[in-house]
Amino acid sequence: VGIACVRNSNHFGIAGYYAMMALPHELLGLAMTNTAALGVPTFGRQVMFGTNPLAFAAPARREGAFVLDMSTTVVSRGTLEMHDKQAKPLPDGWAVDRHGRPAHDAGSVLEDMLRRSGGGILPLGGIGEAHGGHKGYGLAVMVDVLCAVLAGAPFGPAVADTEHSSARVSHLLAAARIDRFRDPDEFRRDMDGLLGQLRACPPAEGRQRVWFAGQREAEREREWLTTGIPLLTRVHDQLGAIAAERGIDPPATVSGAPSR
Amino acid sequence: VGIACVRNSNHFGIAGYYAMMALPHELLGLAMTNTAALGVPTFGRQVMFGTNPLAFAAPARREGAFVLDMSTTVVSRGTLEMHDKQAKPLPDGWAVDRHGRPAHDAGSVLEDMLRRSGGGILPLGGIGEAHGGHKGYGLAVMVDVLCAVLAGAPFGPAVADTEHSSARVSHLLAAARIDRFRDPDEFRRDMDGLLGQLRACPPAEGRQRVWFAGQREAEREREWLTTGIPLLTRVHDQLGAIAAERGIDPPATVSGAPSR
Repeated sequence: VGIACVRNSNHFGIAGYYAMMALPHELLGLAMTNTAALGVPTFGRQVMFGTNPLAFAAPARREGAFVLDMSTTVVSRGTLEMHDKQAKPLPDGWAVDRHGRPAHDAGSVLEDMLRRSGGGILPLGGIGEAHGGHKGYGLAVMVDVLCAVLAGAPFGPAVADTEHSSARVSHLLAAARIDRFRDPDEFRRDMDGLLGQLRACPPAEGRQRVWFAGQREAEREREWLTTGIPLLTRVHDQLGAIAAERGIDPPATVSGAPSR
Repeated sequence: VGIACVRNSNHFGIAGYYAMMALPHELLGLAMTNTAALGVPTFGRQVMFGTNPLAFAAPARREGAFVLDMSTTVVSRGTLEMHDKQAKPLPDGWAVDRHGRPAHDAGSVLEDMLRRSGGGILPLGGIGEAHGGHKGYGLAVMVDVLCAVLAGAPFGPAVADTEHSSARVSHLLAAARIDRFRDPDEFRRDMDGLLGQLRACPPAEGRQRVWFAGQREAEREREWLTTGIPLLTRVHDQLGAIAAERGIDPPATVSGAPSR
């Protein structure tokens, strides 16, 4: 097993991308990063940690790989921004205001988080302890310990973009050889068994399917490799404008993949 | 870093106990186990994984250690049993019935889980995806992969007590040397910084304090080492009865530590 830390870094991109690099090599992959603080601890009202995502990937054989890629906060900043743009109220359990009370106005939460005047996004499990908010809070801090404290990098509320620098985030990347534990073919066979069972789990009333982590993304990737990647019309147009400015080809519009 | 798997095992006890064994040795500790299946995947209605706890421990200096010890389901079976005994309805987001609908009667859920007739406890994050239930579901499966699939042991719904044997659960135990990353004294100093900041986080309206993972347990341990461990009156009496039967001393009742 190998573990590496990275410090003084910048935007991590997709955590699962790094974890998945392990898959073709009969390895288990793990990747995590801290991010600029926007999460509020259980019973608190000030941001103390980031969305601090973690990703874990394990290969299978016939089934797609198991790829978990999750923020340890209940939602990310982007989801709040979407609600703000659409003037949709936030559901309970997503965020608190500057007094630490349930917050439903995305715009105010975003502004308060930016100014660090109190309030922010809740950890996975929501407000208080009744639904396990203290677990998500603990996971977020675990990621900060493994990325930042282990690497000698900024942690907690000190992780923030400033006028002079980016947030200087840090990461942890790890991989473990499956063959040190058992025959990788047998491992993959059992992964097929586990993932197949999950996929075949009888769905709840009103639901069509049960997915395992990474399955939907893999299905979408296969589909989009054929049909092209749907883009928001606005993004498509922006890319076209940039292309025109630079004198390069605009993104093609493929029939069957209408821009969204 | 070292990783070991254990298979064909029995009740794990306290996950945090094993993770904390790393602390006096300048190591990070990790411990996890699968358990008999009682958790229902996101959008599903059959049990497919256990409470699958994970524990992580990291040493500090003046502050107590950071010790996360959490089930990856929103609650454990014991919590449902307590609600059943007290005839208290289950809050939303804890469990689903045999149709996969929100369940509020603890007794029926416990019975349905036992018979595997559908229904069970939800993953951390609750029902559906709105509060991140798919993340808790993913964490639970990750623990099953790392404990059982990696060890060549029973996984998923096959983890169950039978008439002839216990659930034959499996565990993963890992430890990593801090000094391979940085001076352990500096690591501990920064842990003090991080944990001190969390402890000093301004509390939400109506709350007195913010804790970091493991802090309350450490405080309670120090207190109970002086005052004795409070016991439920019924447990105290049961221990007394067993002691009398075996002809040994009953548990002492210490003044200042009234049985609860």
